[in-house]
Amino acid sequence: MNVKTVLILLVLALATIFALVCVLLTRGKGPSACQHQPPEQEDTDGGQSLVFADLSPEEMVQVVQYLQGNLGVRLVDASRAKPSDNCIASIDVQVPAKAEVLRFLDGAGARPPREALAVLYFGNQPEPNVTEYVVGPLPTPAYHRDVTVRRYGGPLPYHRRPVTGREYADINALVRQELRKAPRFLAACCQSDGTDLAILTTAPRGFQSGDRATWFVLFQNTPGTGYYLSPVGLEVLVEHRDLHVSHWQLRQVFYNGRYLASTQDLEDAFVTGMLEVIRLEKPQEAEAVLGSMRPRQEPASPGPLQYEPRGPRYSVKDNRVTFQGWSVTFGMNPNSGPRLFDIRYRGKRIIYELSLQEALALYGSNCPGGMSTRYLDGSFGIGRFAYELVRGLDCPYTATYVDRHYLVESETPKTNQNSLCIFEHDAAIPLRRHFSDSQSLYFGGLRRGVLVIRTISTLINYDYIWDFMFHGSGAVEVRVHATGYISSSFLHGRGTDYGNRVGPHTLGTMHLHHIHYKVDLDVDGQLNSLETQDMEYEVVQDPWSKQSTLERPYLRRTRLQTEEEAAFPLNAPLPRYLCFASPNPNRWGHRRSYRIQITSSAGEHLPVSSPMERAISWGRYQLAVTRRKEEEPSSTSIYNQNDPWTPTVAFADFINNETITNEDLVAWISVGFLHVPHAEDVPNTVTVGNSVGFLLRPYNYFDEDPSVDSPDGVYFSGEQDSGVCGTNPLSCLSSTAACVPQLPPFHYRGFLNLTLAPLPGGL
Amino acid sequence: MNVKTVLILLVLALATIFALVCVLLTRGKGPSACQHQPPEQEDTDGGQSLVFADLSPEEMVQVVQYLQGNLGVRLVDASRAKPSDNCIASIDVQVPAKAEVLRFLDGAGARPPREALAVLYFGNQPEPNVTEYVVGPLPTPAYHRDVTVRRYGGPLPYHRRPVTGREYADINALVRQELRKAPRFLAACCQSDGTDLAILTTAPRGFQSGDRATWFVLFQNTPGTGYYLSPVGLEVLVEHRDLHVSHWQLRQVFYNGRYLASTQDLEDAFVTGMLEVIRLEKPQEAEAVLGSMRPRQEPASPGPLQYEPRGPRYSVKDNRVTFQGWSVTFGMNPNSGPRLFDIRYRGKRIIYELSLQEALALYGSNCPGGMSTRYLDGSFGIGRFAYELVRGLDCPYTATYVDRHYLVESETPKTNQNSLCIFEHDAAIPLRRHFSDSQSLYFGGLRRGVLVIRTISTLINYDYIWDFMFHGSGAVEVRVHATGYISSSFLHGRGTDYGNRVGPHTLGTMHLHHIHYKVDLDVDGQLNSLETQDMEYEVVQDPWSKQSTLERPYLRRTRLQTEEEAAFPLNAPLPRYLCFASPNPNRWGHRRSYRIQITSSAGEHLPVSSPMERAISWGRYQLAVTRRKEEEPSSTSIYNQNDPWTPTVAFADFINNETITNEDLVAWISVGFLHVPHAEDVPNTVTVGNSVGFLLRPYNYFDEDPSVDSPDGVYFSGEQDSGVCGTNPLSCLSSTAACVPQLPPFHYRGFLNLTLAPLPGGL
Repeated sequence: MNVKTVLILLVLALATIFALVCVLLTRGKGPSACQHQPPEQEDTDGGQSLVFADLSPEEMVQVVQYLQGNLGVRLVDASRAKPSDNCIASIDVQVPAKAEVLRFLDGAGARPPREALAVLYFGNQPEPNVTEYVVGPLPTPAYHRDVTVRRYGGPLPYHRRPVTGREYADINALVRQELRKAPRFLAACCQSDGTDLAILTTAPRGFQSGDRATWFVLFQNTPGTGYYLSPVGLEVLVEHRDLHVSHWQLRQVFYNGRYLASTQDLEDAFVTGMLEVIRLEKPQEAEAVLGSMRPRQEPASPGPLQYEPRGPRYSVKDNRVTFQGWSVTFGMNPNSGPRLFDIRYRGKRIIYELSLQEALALYGSNCPGGMSTRYLDGSFGIGRFAYELVRGLDCPYTATYVDRHYLVESETPKTNQNSLCIFEHDAAIPLRRHFSDSQSLYFGGLRRGVLVIRTISTLINYDYIWDFMFHGSGAVEVRVHATGYISSSFLHGRGTDYGNRVGPHTLGTMHLHHIHYKVDLDVDGQLNSLETQDMEYEVVQDPWSKQSTLERPYLRRTRLQTEEEAAFPLNAPLPRYLCFASPNPNRWGHRRSYRIQITSSAGEHLPVSSPMERAISWGRYQLAVTRRKEEEPSSTSIYNQNDPWTPTVAFADFINNETITNEDLVAWISVGFLHVPHAEDVPNTVTVGNSVGFLLRPYNYFDEDPSVDSPDGVYFSGEQDSGVCGTNPLSCLSSTAACVPQLPPFHYRGFLNLTLAPLPGGL
Repeated sequence: MNVKTVLILLVLALATIFALVCVLLTRGKGPSACQHQPPEQEDTDGGQSLVFADLSPEEMVQVVQYLQGNLGVRLVDASRAKPSDNCIASIDVQVPAKAEVLRFLDGAGARPPREALAVLYFGNQPEPNVTEYVVGPLPTPAYHRDVTVRRYGGPLPYHRRPVTGREYADINALVRQELRKAPRFLAACCQSDGTDLAILTTAPRGFQSGDRATWFVLFQNTPGTGYYLSPVGLEVLVEHRDLHVSHWQLRQVFYNGRYLASTQDLEDAFVTGMLEVIRLEKPQEAEAVLGSMRPRQEPASPGPLQYEPRGPRYSVKDNRVTFQGWSVTFGMNPNSGPRLFDIRYRGKRIIYELSLQEALALYGSNCPGGMSTRYLDGSFGIGRFAYELVRGLDCPYTATYVDRHYLVESETPKTNQNSLCIFEHDAAIPLRRHFSDSQSLYFGGLRRGVLVIRTISTLINYDYIWDFMFHGSGAVEVRVHATGYISSSFLHGRGTDYGNRVGPHTLGTMHLHHIHYKVDLDVDGQLNSLETQDMEYEVVQDPWSKQSTLERPYLRRTRLQTEEEAAFPLNAPLPRYLCFASPNPNRWGHRRSYRIQITSSAGEHLPVSSPMERAISWGRYQLAVTRRKEEEPSSTSIYNQNDPWTPTVAFADFINNETITNEDLVAWISVGFLHVPHAEDVPNTVTVGNSVGFLLRPYNYFDEDPSVDSPDGVYFSGEQDSGVCGTNPLSCLSSTAACVPQLPPFHYRGFLNLTLAPLPGGL
């Protein structure tokens, strides 16, 4: 090979290199991953929101250690504690008094000391009781104050305490032991030896203060599917009031419409042919079980997904989210669930506290467990049972997921990873829009992107989806969807007077969901009044000819004076406009206000004549507005579930004719609906149509709609080329959004660290 | 340079080429555009849905030519026709009778002949009248039948006809001519010579049958912004009843609280100092005008966008959409708006017709135009004013957009391009889900993807967003959002008894929105009954101890017998469950049903004592169920607007005590809300909170929730690795969805072909 040939080859090679490099450079301009830009820094909070922060695991540990060393009594870990022991029931943050917090946030006040609220069950004391302590200051506690009497006007009787997981486990053992007395019956009815039945609690547990006798309902349990749909017809009444487990007893047995004194009687009746037994087949495969959620179809193409071409437009720091003028502080009460604080729009506080209070589920049935069930979910733990969310299903795939920590019935903090999610959602509808065909041609509008904060609680069978939404119009939307398994009874007799049959032997039992929220609005300052407006007709002569009459609508404006006037019972129509009004006018002379708009179809919660009604007397009112008081922090109590006959907190007492003009006010809102389960509630209740909530909307609060300042606004007129990017940002989307969405890998650890207890509430 | 060196260089060059090629090949595997897969072919319709199809432009042209040649009278194009001329008012499809359609769709019946319904205004006849003809068969018409008397029991008096664009133009000319008599007043009040004022119609137009005298409200008009917020205080009453425009006259003038006989009187009063004039500034720049929608901020990062990694999962063919078991036929009535037919789920028809009927907007004010306004939007044209949708704002960017055609007040078909959109929306909430922490650990659920069919009508100032939604649970959801500009009056006197001040001289006038829908449900066959269920309490002895009492909820089930029983007035509470029931049971023995669930806050539509109430007597009922009749196709008429005192169709007459058990039934549903405009309605009413609608939900229609068969189901248990794609399709999303979304270029042609008329309704 001569030099020339080699040189030619070299030149060719160099040309090839050049060409390849050109191709590479060009290719480099092809689609790439969406580049996330940090949102404009709106957060200049400087850690102020931490005044509301849930306790950190480290803080919880500090409080536990302090309590162990400073109460002078022996504490047993609640997971092992007998009723006759002392144990820590829960530790949560003690949010400082509002006045103190506002001095800190708005004035020159110092940061309030950080304190915890510790609940102790003292079973091992001469007078067994529940005691609540404020412990502080964190991180190194030095004091504890017994706040029980101050809060509740007296000591808390021990019988009011919620049932612990350990107590359920002991009941479970008792029931299993009793079931062993009816082997032939169990084999006949259920192809069972009793060990494969699930046992579900009901509540309340009796008929009067001090009672602690609970109906437990037995179900066929097929692992991997909700047993709630497979009652076997057997229910047992367990007396578990005594502090000594050995004194507990099974007091009564129900089977398929009959009441018997014991499982021995049940067996005898069966053996002597005196008992009609419904023989249930055991499902042979998991897919065949009523309520199985195992997919029957192969996955197909993924449905529409949301992505963020430049990354999220909100930011999350500590316990605070900021988004397009909004800032929201979030937290979770292990009992009552999600709580938001210091909700501001454009720097001005609108809501001091927005928190879930309680969820009531009240059932009808012709079986004893079902007919007496009135679950107060706060007593079970709406917050602690808010588990890890499934990315891409519970919330959008690209949402931000946040951990929550709690300490309940334990001396060790637990973590619900990724149990709260935050995302901007494209509601796929304009926030506002107008197309003009009159006088001039133009189009204006903007999309409705909404910030959502969500958590989902699993309360035994049901899953509640708690949403808090923040709109570009300055509105806050609160809604709850119900899903999960329905509860059921064994179908017998006139069962369908109480629901619908949804399976071979399953009665989906009719029930109410009532949910209560506290909304401490501070509209343009703390001092507000409640105003109502509604339309009426007046018949007037037409002013121009006086020959005819006209039905003219006019606006009736009323300012309510007292708490009584502002307590709106369930079954009376609400005035169509209800506003929290500040004394200060907007530019047009109207009092700056936020309107409360409720979407609910709740009916009567319980006849007021019921001896337990006062425990859920918040359910009387769609809306009640009271003066805010540090001594009325919540409309309910975790102690109401097991002693509703002497309620620890009775909301009706909050309404005592105080004046509510120009005061710091709280709106207490209840929403709910009637659920008559039907075939389509199997496997799970769908969220479509099972949603209620409320809106808090600016009403003359601003001088114009705040969305005029949104960077998402679109406007073009007939004279403009709507295809030019400078005129219309929509017209550049096809290029600016042409990037590969950043989708993090899927991980789910929600089952880790969960140990199964035999009964609900027992994790 | 020796051979060796060159050879070494050559080797290096080849190595470089190899490396570059490797890089290129690797790069080639990078992200690429999302590959759209055709949806599984569910559509085996074979053109059956075309039996409901809107007329094509070609068909319209055929009908026009037929009418021109076969009516034996001279027709003038409506855009030029004087009241004393004959003209074509509209041509729409004449949907064949239901029995005939069902024979075709379900049996062996032939395809019904295709016919049109032509409405003619005969001003040039001895007895001027409106006549409706059925013209057929298309595409080559050979016959026409006058159906007026059969439909309405007699001829249609000419005075009932809607006002045409030409009539508005003539009125406009008259008003402008009259304004010239008040030059000094206009200069003083409005810095105007009268030519730059916009003139807005009101309706109805008088007090008794035959009246045609309309109040027109005058506004400052700044091109590019809604003039609706800028009333100048002047309103004029125009008498335009006579067939000869030259006989029309301005009958009265209203200015700032005073009534005067003429514009001359107005000028005289002003000149003599007897008139208090409010001097309005003319805005100097478009941005400063009250209600300007021009963005004030630079566009920022785009918000979350939806994309479809494998393309849309629905398909659109002709006038039919199919999606995951759903099939829906869609169309648009130029007057009453969107209409759906033959809605099936899994091949079974659930709804024969679901159509918008009417939208009422009823105002209060202390100005004559405002106080007498009761717009019946169907008379203006809910369908014809559904204009092109803005991609990425009115509907998701990736939605499918469809054209609609109409022929109204013209002899030439017009097209609203891309005026109906179809998309699957990720509602960003589970359709259902359950996390199990009890007995066994598992998670199951699926996303809530919903098919949406949307169109948006601009009715003068307001924009109504009409949504029809189809859920994976078998539920149909119908909702309407109101947005666009509010209407307003000039603020004077006690104006705020009728609304709120929202600008320097602007009173946002209080009004009602009431919307009426026809829902011809055929639940498992044509013959249905209406059943209600609600919960009540009974106090019973507890069955196990008999020592205490229990408030036990029970279900009251009722089957309604007559149309009267099934007419639910507005202000009485609805039974919480209302179902269309088939006689056939589901697997569990319950009658297969669909439940109607209404979300509305409508109040009294109008006192029944009003002489025009019968024209909107559909507004009396939240829900009324009547026997379906071919002679009761619609609850209202376009002729009701201009003669509400002798309504052409009075819905109340449909309710005449016929039995409704096992009959073909129609549910007539009205939804609405009270709108008291407030500062935040400027520039436009937001959709948040201004939405009402209803759900049609399966209720024991299936044997279980149909979503169990969805390919979107997700299930994994604690024992499974949720990160394995085979177990959990969510875990592969980060790779399967890692592609560049296909975003078509943005085009908007909505302003093309629009010629501005001076008055609404006049395009």
